[in-house]
Amino acid sequence: MEEIVLPRDRQERRDWLQDAGVHAVAAALNRAGAKDCARAFRELPAGKALPVFSRLEPPAQKAIVEDHEGEERKALIEGMAPDNRARLIAYLPEDRAQSLLESLGEEARALTRQLLAYPEQSAGRIMTPEFVRLRPDMSVADALEEVRAKAERAETIHFMPVVDEDMTLVGTVGLGQLVLAEGGQSVGDVATRDVPSVETKTDQEAVARLMKEADLMAVPVVGEDGRLVGIVTFDDAMEVLEFEQAEDIARAGATEPAAAPYLSVSLFGLVRSRITWLAVLMLAYALTVQVLDAFEAQLEETVALALFIPLLIGMGGNAGTQSVTTVVRALAVRDIGTADALAVAGKEVGAALVMGAALALAGYALLIAFFPPGIALTVALSGLAIIGFAALSGAVMPMVARVLSIDPAVFSSPVVNTVIDAVGLVIYFLIAKAVLGI
Amino acid sequence: MEEIVLPRDRQERRDWLQDAGVHAVAAALNRAGAKDCARAFRELPAGKALPVFSRLEPPAQKAIVEDHEGEERKALIEGMAPDNRARLIAYLPEDRAQSLLESLGEEARALTRQLLAYPEQSAGRIMTPEFVRLRPDMSVADALEEVRAKAERAETIHFMPVVDEDMTLVGTVGLGQLVLAEGGQSVGDVATRDVPSVETKTDQEAVARLMKEADLMAVPVVGEDGRLVGIVTFDDAMEVLEFEQAEDIARAGATEPAAAPYLSVSLFGLVRSRITWLAVLMLAYALTVQVLDAFEAQLEETVALALFIPLLIGMGGNAGTQSVTTVVRALAVRDIGTADALAVAGKEVGAALVMGAALALAGYALLIAFFPPGIALTVALSGLAIIGFAALSGAVMPMVARVLSIDPAVFSSPVVNTVIDAVGLVIYFLIAKAVLGI
Repeated sequence: MEEIVLPRDRQERRDWLQDAGVHAVAAALNRAGAKDCARAFRELPAGKALPVFSRLEPPAQKAIVEDHEGEERKALIEGMAPDNRARLIAYLPEDRAQSLLESLGEEARALTRQLLAYPEQSAGRIMTPEFVRLRPDMSVADALEEVRAKAERAETIHFMPVVDEDMTLVGTVGLGQLVLAEGGQSVGDVATRDVPSVETKTDQEAVARLMKEADLMAVPVVGEDGRLVGIVTFDDAMEVLEFEQAEDIARAGATEPAAAPYLSVSLFGLVRSRITWLAVLMLAYALTVQVLDAFEAQLEETVALALFIPLLIGMGGNAGTQSVTTVVRALAVRDIGTADALAVAGKEVGAALVMGAALALAGYALLIAFFPPGIALTVALSGLAIIGFAALSGAVMPMVARVLSIDPAVFSSPVVNTVIDAVGLVIYFLIAKAVLGI
Repeated sequence: MEEIVLPRDRQERRDWLQDAGVHAVAAALNRAGAKDCARAFRELPAGKALPVFSRLEPPAQKAIVEDHEGEERKALIEGMAPDNRARLIAYLPEDRAQSLLESLGEEARALTRQLLAYPEQSAGRIMTPEFVRLRPDMSVADALEEVRAKAERAETIHFMPVVDEDMTLVGTVGLGQLVLAEGGQSVGDVATRDVPSVETKTDQEAVARLMKEADLMAVPVVGEDGRLVGIVTFDDAMEVLEFEQAEDIARAGATEPAAAPYLSVSLFGLVRSRITWLAVLMLAYALTVQVLDAFEAQLEETVALALFIPLLIGMGGNAGTQSVTTVVRALAVRDIGTADALAVAGKEVGAALVMGAALALAGYALLIAFFPPGIALTVALSGLAIIGFAALSGAVMPMVARVLSIDPAVFSSPVVNTVIDAVGLVIYFLIAKAVLGI
């Protein structure tokens, strides 16, 4: 379970590439930079090259493809499963992708184009069109014969959709069900009916979650006309769960998911994925300067008020982060929908007020020992109000995003924090004016 | 792909429970509150009850178990796969778990106890001990016979570990490999050798990531003595990927993952999962009050300095969040290790300084129009320095956590933000003193 790293020393590396399993080599190449990856791939024993290549992530595959030409490159690409091939082509720059597609044989090209015609991150993009289909009226023995005949081309022979003459899905059958069947049974007798299926345009995250919830080894994909066009297998679902996780986490941190392993991203690659967010947030923060400017008279009169600015907006930010994290997550796993907005807002604000009241009381008791009672009261009341407002923003903003069909994860804690900071300052100084009479 | 919700109306609900597939019913019960879940389960047609029950998450299973007694309850629990049963028992309160365990038949009790003896979140906890093992010297025909004989008890017959006499793992074989084998071949001839395996104490996240990276349908689990004791299947890996995602996201938001669907968690359940974090952060924020208190003379003299406090610490927080998010993620997927600390810190600080310089220049150009040059210069320089420091903290703190064997995700943006706020204020006022000569 240790990190697997390519040995630096040339002879050591060649020995290791010779001995290590396909999985270990793929893991090491995925983590290496483009140059190291391409060099190590050339040092691989011939028999391992293709199996390793098909296991790699697109950034590593790109590095290798760019290091090969002509027939060698064509063999690499044609040896891939159609869904992985489409994923690689989609990852490459436009012109590079086009020339690569055109260099492929007719069949591989057509299959890849077909998958690329579906929207990004849809079931159509991650499905494989190479599967074994069975008919319900086939005998189990004939079905096993068909499985053997088609095995070489199919991505899996452990899961077979069962379709009628016009490719309408009737059910699915696992290889296990065929092996356990009694002599004389038909595929229709042993197939599972009423199986879940997805459409080509279904979002890949919804596909993966369905497979996870229903413990499916694979799920059939049907086109808009209801005909079967492919299957999505469990390994694709695991990739998707991982990818969606990376995306949500990155967005919650006001950045974009890295396209490549950390160490192989350049410093300017990092800057590119972050500068826009940072600049937008800076402009938004100009609001806080204006709010404080509007209350400069109060600040001049009672400089002690400035001491609690970071504490109050910080606590508002923390409470807001807690709410937004919980609500974005619950929306993502479909625990809640926009119809629950009122219930969610009520619960979030309720919880925040309970916590805020406890912390405000504790804070008041502490502050009264060092500051005038008016200041202590102002800070305690502001804390309570700001935490309540923060929870409300944290609950409502992702809901609004969902209604507007924006990814709720974009309403990350930094975005919510900026709003809370500006509004929190207004709350603070209004309470200060009222309590202190300034 | 819509949200599946239990109909409120009694007759409508019964009709739906009659017609809907097992997966849809399980999805609806998982989302319902405890009472609705238990009631709907009692309304299920008899044939669906067990299949639905075994598909449910522990919170829903708990609601149903608490609604049943005696033989009925025993039948529910004994009908579960051993790994799911162990997961449910571990989820129940201690006394309830004990009495339930004791009510089980001897075999189910022993199997469950065996799994529960492994550490939480380890491979031992999520593996199934019910699988079909094959010997390398068996003929393929005998192996298929063995598969048929053991199918009813085994969790899967699509993946079989191959072991020698003393249960040492030799390889694995898929049902597909057996079906495709030529007559006369032995299991040893068709088995895959050099397969990845994990130990009972391996962390479940490492198991799931291995399965995802190597596209494994299942992975063998060996004990400390090297003997095979179970297998982890792909559906468990998907559950783990989902759970770890929930945990990382929750921790990054300074909260703990919810034990149940959002709508079924009580208001005080929410408070419980958050109040500790919020209280600790409030105490930490007391530091910012002390820092500002120490610079009160400067604040009195130049109140305008207060206007930029939220902007500067806010931008520090955002830059810190970007770094910590990226580094925590890269550590989690093992893109980087603690040995890369220096390279990571260098890259993060480098990227932050590039962004900080651009934003500081833009900020200076804006501020000079409205504020004295000394203030504009102070704010711009402080912004650059704070963003640089923030990136350094965001890069280093998760590394330190990893060295101390703490989950890096605990160094969430709120924690990092608190440190950045306090240190950022010190930086700001030191620069102000130097530039403004106050």
